[in-house]
Amino acid sequence: MRIYQYENSVQIKKVLQRPHLDRSRIEKIVRPILERVKKGGDRILFKYAVEYDQVKLDDLWVEKKSLETSGERVSESLKSSIDIAKRNIEKFHRNQLDADFETEIMPGVNCSRKSIPIERVGLYIPGGTAPLFSTVLMLGIPAIIAGCDEIVLATPTNKIGEVNDVVLYTAHLLGIKKVLKLGGAQAIGAMAFGTESVPKVDKILGPGNQYVTVAKQIVSQETVSIDMPAGPSEVMVAIDSTSKSSFVAADLLAQAEHGGDSQVILVSLSKKKAEKVLKQIDSQLEELPRKDIAKEALKNSIVILVKNHDQMLEVINEYGAEHLIINLQDEQLIVDGVKNAGSVFIGPHTPESVGDYASGTNHTLPTGGWAKSYSGVSVDSFVKKITYQKLTKQGLELLGPTVETLAEAESLQAHKHAVSIRLKSK
Amino acid sequence: MRIYQYENSVQIKKVLQRPHLDRSRIEKIVRPILERVKKGGDRILFKYAVEYDQVKLDDLWVEKKSLETSGERVSESLKSSIDIAKRNIEKFHRNQLDADFETEIMPGVNCSRKSIPIERVGLYIPGGTAPLFSTVLMLGIPAIIAGCDEIVLATPTNKIGEVNDVVLYTAHLLGIKKVLKLGGAQAIGAMAFGTESVPKVDKILGPGNQYVTVAKQIVSQETVSIDMPAGPSEVMVAIDSTSKSSFVAADLLAQAEHGGDSQVILVSLSKKKAEKVLKQIDSQLEELPRKDIAKEALKNSIVILVKNHDQMLEVINEYGAEHLIINLQDEQLIVDGVKNAGSVFIGPHTPESVGDYASGTNHTLPTGGWAKSYSGVSVDSFVKKITYQKLTKQGLELLGPTVETLAEAESLQAHKHAVSIRLKSK
Repeated sequence: MRIYQYENSVQIKKVLQRPHLDRSRIEKIVRPILERVKKGGDRILFKYAVEYDQVKLDDLWVEKKSLETSGERVSESLKSSIDIAKRNIEKFHRNQLDADFETEIMPGVNCSRKSIPIERVGLYIPGGTAPLFSTVLMLGIPAIIAGCDEIVLATPTNKIGEVNDVVLYTAHLLGIKKVLKLGGAQAIGAMAFGTESVPKVDKILGPGNQYVTVAKQIVSQETVSIDMPAGPSEVMVAIDSTSKSSFVAADLLAQAEHGGDSQVILVSLSKKKAEKVLKQIDSQLEELPRKDIAKEALKNSIVILVKNHDQMLEVINEYGAEHLIINLQDEQLIVDGVKNAGSVFIGPHTPESVGDYASGTNHTLPTGGWAKSYSGVSVDSFVKKITYQKLTKQGLELLGPTVETLAEAESLQAHKHAVSIRLKSK
Repeated sequence: MRIYQYENSVQIKKVLQRPHLDRSRIEKIVRPILERVKKGGDRILFKYAVEYDQVKLDDLWVEKKSLETSGERVSESLKSSIDIAKRNIEKFHRNQLDADFETEIMPGVNCSRKSIPIERVGLYIPGGTAPLFSTVLMLGIPAIIAGCDEIVLATPTNKIGEVNDVVLYTAHLLGIKKVLKLGGAQAIGAMAFGTESVPKVDKILGPGNQYVTVAKQIVSQETVSIDMPAGPSEVMVAIDSTSKSSFVAADLLAQAEHGGDSQVILVSLSKKKAEKVLKQIDSQLEELPRKDIAKEALKNSIVILVKNHDQMLEVINEYGAEHLIINLQDEQLIVDGVKNAGSVFIGPHTPESVGDYASGTNHTLPTGGWAKSYSGVSVDSFVKKITYQKLTKQGLELLGPTVETLAEAESLQAHKHAVSIRLKSK
């Protein structure tokens, strides 16, 4: 990890710049896949399963019985942990249902807003090195609270065409019935365009590798919306001389084990403490099964030394981290100054892992600086808010002349006329 | 307007398909403009003003005095109408500030969520045939209610380098101080990348022509978020035998005058009434200054005859109109069944124009079927919601073992370790 001393805003902007990902190479691979799925439907999906995943599928969907019996193949202790996580996530997300409202703007002019669930959603759960059943909870629970009609979960299989049992168990626990045995850009294409057996969804959510991410971005240009642009996972940890270096090192490493492209940044008010943390990292690293991945990630990671809270907040807000851990003495002062972050972890006893799994907050969060304008996944991600207005005859008599004047000033005579013809009518 | 009788879901899907817009031609023009703005900064912006708008600008920004004195050049009646619209829009949008919440998930596990304003936003106000000061209200008011730090308004000038006075007056009324005298893809590029004098914003909102729309989509892939994908404006009007055909015709024409590519759709429970409406359109059309535009739009417009409320709702929800006018006897029955729409106008006295200007709802709404997954612009569009968690030592002792089990099951040992090291610590 390279160490920088805060100098000024220009320097810090440069230091915090994320590596630029060139999407064009991936796009060249992904576009033809999407086109072929669009035209070829199910037939192509079976073909891609053989070609890319070396699996000959009999059915694109997990069968009902396999879902229903999945619990038998998961340990009791894991089931009860999943259950606790589920309850916590539900409890937090239930607070996110916005109240509908209705308001009389003027006498006879009533306006209102209602949250309406997005009808059909597609949840993508990556396969890869680890079965991410936690993401099933993080996407499935808000979708269910929002009241989405149709939930399709897509996830790749192993080499013999089976979906991980814990993923199935978690889906079944939530009441998700449609599990599509597909990963990659082809899964995104299937849900975006629809095929003979896959329903076209209105929105696709969930993390994935570069192919999945680019596929989501491409389809979001024309047919289906997505949760957010996704990039490598990141953490920023803010510390001072009072922070416990072993805790800080463990938090940085937990992020680093995600992938070689993970971003790990330490912001410290104390040089001495930062150096202690680096030493701790070296010693803890050796114990980790995924140490090669973590080492790779640490190569791109940095330490920024700051002199005061203002500098610290500038670094925090300039970066806009997906995960921000604030583990220092004047924690509230820093917490109150955070403007850009996905999720914030406060105090010595709050490692990022608690939010990744079970504190209740969502772990699908904006990366790559998108925290400056995006929120993480929430119940909001699964609804749209429709506005309504209803005027009485008296309401239109009151407001109509205003609308006539404004429409006239914008040279939209037919807009004006739609009011005038009513005002003139007996 | 062609007339279709509802037959079945497959037929209706086909009939309601929107014309496909080929963006590739526009992209070829827009990409180099964006690249040049990114590299050339202010110098290129001045150059584009000459090249595309035939204007030699002295300054990219509207000067303070010009903003402050703009009211002198706007009529009193228009000013008072703008004032009423402003108050109504404020009243409606103030309801949209979501309450922050905090909740104890388990003893010692506290989670919360706060809405934080997006720091820097860019509002694009088209010039073109009419000065859209109403859009200044619709974008500016929620930005101010949300509490955005920096609001940049970009709008093209006339041939002598002046911004429309009503646009300036409305901006000044809201307290917007930065008005950029630029339109087109170059304005989007300037706000997306930043230049010597233009601040890089975090989000760009507002309607525009195809160049602006494509530019917004391109920059949204890498640097800045946008409100929504934009397409031609649209209205769907749902009627029965009791609807007043002159009102319905006026509503359809108000939409048609927007542009030759506007979409106008009539859904009727009565064939006879639909035919009357078409006759009314012919006679009202002749009175309109923008009748050529309206005629063009009507060429692509359609009437769908339905037999019952179920068919009507299917048509409504399959299309997902930007504006939906429900003007028939059993209005509540239809209103309650609406799942996809931008904004809904209910009853005989609620023409779309009231929502376009002054009922209080926002007129920046999802088009092109995006109402299935997007909401219109609201205070939400100008905030992001950050989640927070703080565990006490006891909280971690309670929840930690669950997190350890879950992390272990996902093979993320460092995630587990970040908990274990704390639980073991005295």
